[in-house]
Amino acid sequence: MLKEVDLINSPSDIRNAFRNNELTRPTSGLAPGYVQANLAILPREKAFDFLLFCQRNPKPCPLIEVLEPGEIEASLTAPGSDVRNDVPLYRVYKNGVLDAEIKSLTNIWEKDFVTFLLGCSFSFEAALQNNGIRLPHFEKGTNVSMYITNIETSSAGEFSGPMVVSMRSIPQEKVVRAVQVTSRFPSVHGSPIHVGAPENIGIADISTPDFGDPTEIKEGEVPVFWACGVTPQSVAMSSKPEIMITHAPGYMFITDKKDEEYSVL
Amino acid sequence: MLKEVDLINSPSDIRNAFRNNELTRPTSGLAPGYVQANLAILPREKAFDFLLFCQRNPKPCPLIEVLEPGEIEASLTAPGSDVRNDVPLYRVYKNGVLDAEIKSLTNIWEKDFVTFLLGCSFSFEAALQNNGIRLPHFEKGTNVSMYITNIETSSAGEFSGPMVVSMRSIPQEKVVRAVQVTSRFPSVHGSPIHVGAPENIGIADISTPDFGDPTEIKEGEVPVFWACGVTPQSVAMSSKPEIMITHAPGYMFITDKKDEEYSVL
Repeated sequence: MLKEVDLINSPSDIRNAFRNNELTRPTSGLAPGYVQANLAILPREKAFDFLLFCQRNPKPCPLIEVLEPGEIEASLTAPGSDVRNDVPLYRVYKNGVLDAEIKSLTNIWEKDFVTFLLGCSFSFEAALQNNGIRLPHFEKGTNVSMYITNIETSSAGEFSGPMVVSMRSIPQEKVVRAVQVTSRFPSVHGSPIHVGAPENIGIADISTPDFGDPTEIKEGEVPVFWACGVTPQSVAMSSKPEIMITHAPGYMFITDKKDEEYSVL
Repeated sequence: MLKEVDLINSPSDIRNAFRNNELTRPTSGLAPGYVQANLAILPREKAFDFLLFCQRNPKPCPLIEVLEPGEIEASLTAPGSDVRNDVPLYRVYKNGVLDAEIKSLTNIWEKDFVTFLLGCSFSFEAALQNNGIRLPHFEKGTNVSMYITNIETSSAGEFSGPMVVSMRSIPQEKVVRAVQVTSRFPSVHGSPIHVGAPENIGIADISTPDFGDPTEIKEGEVPVFWACGVTPQSVAMSSKPEIMITHAPGYMFITDKKDEEYSVL
């Protein structure tokens, strides 16, 4: 039984602790080196268009695994898992409005639910830090700054809307390395979509993010923008699906895959 | 009017020539530097599972674009195109058996047809040649050697089966460069799936490929294997869909995207 937060526990131990309600906490810092995923669950009738939307927008919507309709085990990335219970906290949205925060989906699960696991920036942030690029929001325990841009996603069926980006303030001399390091991970957002000039992508005031906490940009630093996994959620929600389930922010699904397995070079 | 084969014509000029039946020929060598795509068309009821299959097997099934049900224009990669007519030669399969080779789909088009464009090895072969790695099958005008392996794909719905690979014989001293060059293109098959030892991936006799022409492996050369776009076709066909349409081998769909746009570094 996993009573205390133990950073060296395996992904499956941690998932089991969440499943058995022995632990409920944000997953940042747990199982370092393993891929954590954003979760989105939609009824099958919406799933083809959502899958198409992700295929057309791989930078904001990097698919890690998509389950068959009704399937509860992420057999490719987390064998033995139960996506109804292995996320510490879920959000249930009805017609695009938050309806409940719950710890288990067992009682509301439907046979036609399709589960999407999408790559998350934790993977490339670990790679940035391993390359000597410090991320103050990590160290302070605050949230990354996120902004709605004027970059349109490629629509699919009824899903469309602007891209949301996350911003990290990178020392001028490390911008090239930040581009290289994140380019290695196309399946977890990949390379930045923009360097510098926030006004060029529709961000009027860099000091007031649309989501997350503000970031101080110090002398000699450049704001660098990556496509953000909030995009598919916000796009799906604006189509007001009868039901959509996601993880609660920061409470991710932990897979058995190592970050490095997703690097292309 | 495009009467003669002119290598410097734009992709849209060439597509128009195919559409108007001014030209019918394999597309190898046409519009150099532009991405050519494998084509697969399936009714919508099969499309979700096929899209899922491609998502789970990105190396053999690299999706370049997927069209909405009934849509005929590949608006993201070839604006103004008509996928019913812009491939020089199509194959129509019924219940998994070749039924006809035709030059236009206009008369058999259905509103629920979903078109998949998949990356093709032409893109990374051009990159290999630009890096001084000679490909004899290119120079001789023969087909690359392809083999059915013992590597299982990740199944999706009713789609499952072994991975098909293509083989290129690479001088020992250029193997590292071949891995680097093709790793840059994860969306057109990417890095090799195997270097050397064909028996380790279930190929008993390298001199007799399952598809394409034999390749001579010279002294000092190593067989290098890449996931092949024949895989999704063979997997889909073995599920015996009522109807499935593909390009005829070598008669590809030419997009407006440059190969380099698909490199990650």
